[in-house]
Amino acid sequence: MAGFNVRSVLVTGANRGIGLELVKQFLEKSNPPEWVFATCRDPEGERAQQLKNLASRHPNLEIVALEATDPASIKAAATRVEEHLKSSGLNLLINNAGIVRLSTLESETPEDMSLVYATNVTGPLLVSQAFLPLLKKAAQGSPQPGLSCSKAAIVNMSSEGGSITNPFAWQFGQVVSYRCSKAALNMLTKCQSLGYGGDGILSIAVHPGWVQTDMGSSASHQAPLTVDMSVQGILNVLPTLSKKDNGAFVNWEGKVLPW
Amino acid sequence: MAGFNVRSVLVTGANRGIGLELVKQFLEKSNPPEWVFATCRDPEGERAQQLKNLASRHPNLEIVALEATDPASIKAAATRVEEHLKSSGLNLLINNAGIVRLSTLESETPEDMSLVYATNVTGPLLVSQAFLPLLKKAAQGSPQPGLSCSKAAIVNMSSEGGSITNPFAWQFGQVVSYRCSKAALNMLTKCQSLGYGGDGILSIAVHPGWVQTDMGSSASHQAPLTVDMSVQGILNVLPTLSKKDNGAFVNWEGKVLPW
Repeated sequence: MAGFNVRSVLVTGANRGIGLELVKQFLEKSNPPEWVFATCRDPEGERAQQLKNLASRHPNLEIVALEATDPASIKAAATRVEEHLKSSGLNLLINNAGIVRLSTLESETPEDMSLVYATNVTGPLLVSQAFLPLLKKAAQGSPQPGLSCSKAAIVNMSSEGGSITNPFAWQFGQVVSYRCSKAALNMLTKCQSLGYGGDGILSIAVHPGWVQTDMGSSASHQAPLTVDMSVQGILNVLPTLSKKDNGAFVNWEGKVLPW
Repeated sequence: MAGFNVRSVLVTGANRGIGLELVKQFLEKSNPPEWVFATCRDPEGERAQQLKNLASRHPNLEIVALEATDPASIKAAATRVEEHLKSSGLNLLINNAGIVRLSTLESETPEDMSLVYATNVTGPLLVSQAFLPLLKKAAQGSPQPGLSCSKAAIVNMSSEGGSITNPFAWQFGQVVSYRCSKAALNMLTKCQSLGYGGDGILSIAVHPGWVQTDMGSSASHQAPLTVDMSVQGILNVLPTLSKKDNGAFVNWEGKVLPW
């Protein structure tokens, strides 16, 4: 990560799993960001305790309330982040918050279809809309040419389960609401790359690997991947991405995945 | 369509555009289906007048109320269709009902994201769940080996706008909620092909071409396609599909499209 100088980063769903680990590893860098914004639904709740412990040791960590299905909450978070950043922009927005609901094709419900989509697709859309002025400001204020994650970027945490092409995902759980949402998130990423590339903002969909987290099962069809290894991989890949990768779908090792 | 002998077909969103034309052309075949079920939200309303005119001339046409975002309405429709079919199954389910809401990436709203997804993705999921017993019955009762649209099939009316790969769709309208919904519908189709193939049911996503309908704009980047030509094409393509096409995404000319 030698070349990865991010002045400010925001991670949604940062109180657990991959989100929490992203925050930790950003803070532990030899050249940590000036600002790390970690969002979660309820910063005062028990589930944010690990973030609070981190914040007590890292003054550059700011915990911000953000509920990805609530537009008012998203706007309030953007206002708060802007106050902290003062005149500078936000370099890196990581839309990590997401949910999964176990189901089969026959047992899938409209309620879960709706909730999973609202969280995994509409959430990243609305968060990106709200933080777009700050991302644009970072891009405009950067002397770097082209596109990069240290200049201005939207990283959408997707999943190989959202790859329509992927032949084996089915065997490890039908999770139709989840798979449909991640295919849609990949489309959103492509749309964002087309819409925001001209503003100097890179948009990327990332598969973090089949990681054992609170959120879902490990498919275990590969060597088990720890959250730590996954995030190390992601933080090695992000600084390598440039204009040619805009709108792509890559995994934690930097491999391009098929839609 | 010489070899296309469908005993029963159901088309959702059949009161206008491509749905209505599908119903018409099925009824006008030299060997029409024994049953054509045309569903729409309000069979008693003004917008169903063309269907009612058709029904007055075609006793094999049955108009059925079905609101794709309402599970109770879908179940009631399945019960009604089952009563008509008596002991036989449903060969062909065409999930054609869909909506579009114009937007840009920045103006897209959570309300439209939710409504478009409920109609274009959750609708086809729920309709397929409800009619699955009838599709299975058709597959079990068929002497045909393999998979085909005249045996038992789910046809999801998708769009090239749902192709993440497609480089030009963006220029003709951002319609993020629509594009995300159609990418998700393609994923649903793939899941259905994996889940129902073993039951003898073929699942296909079809792009009808960029057709001028009530629903949306014509992209007009190709020779203009009439609804009549599009549906003629689709009805020529469907009988050619077999097991090797299960889960594919094809256009009205039978060309396989990329995800």
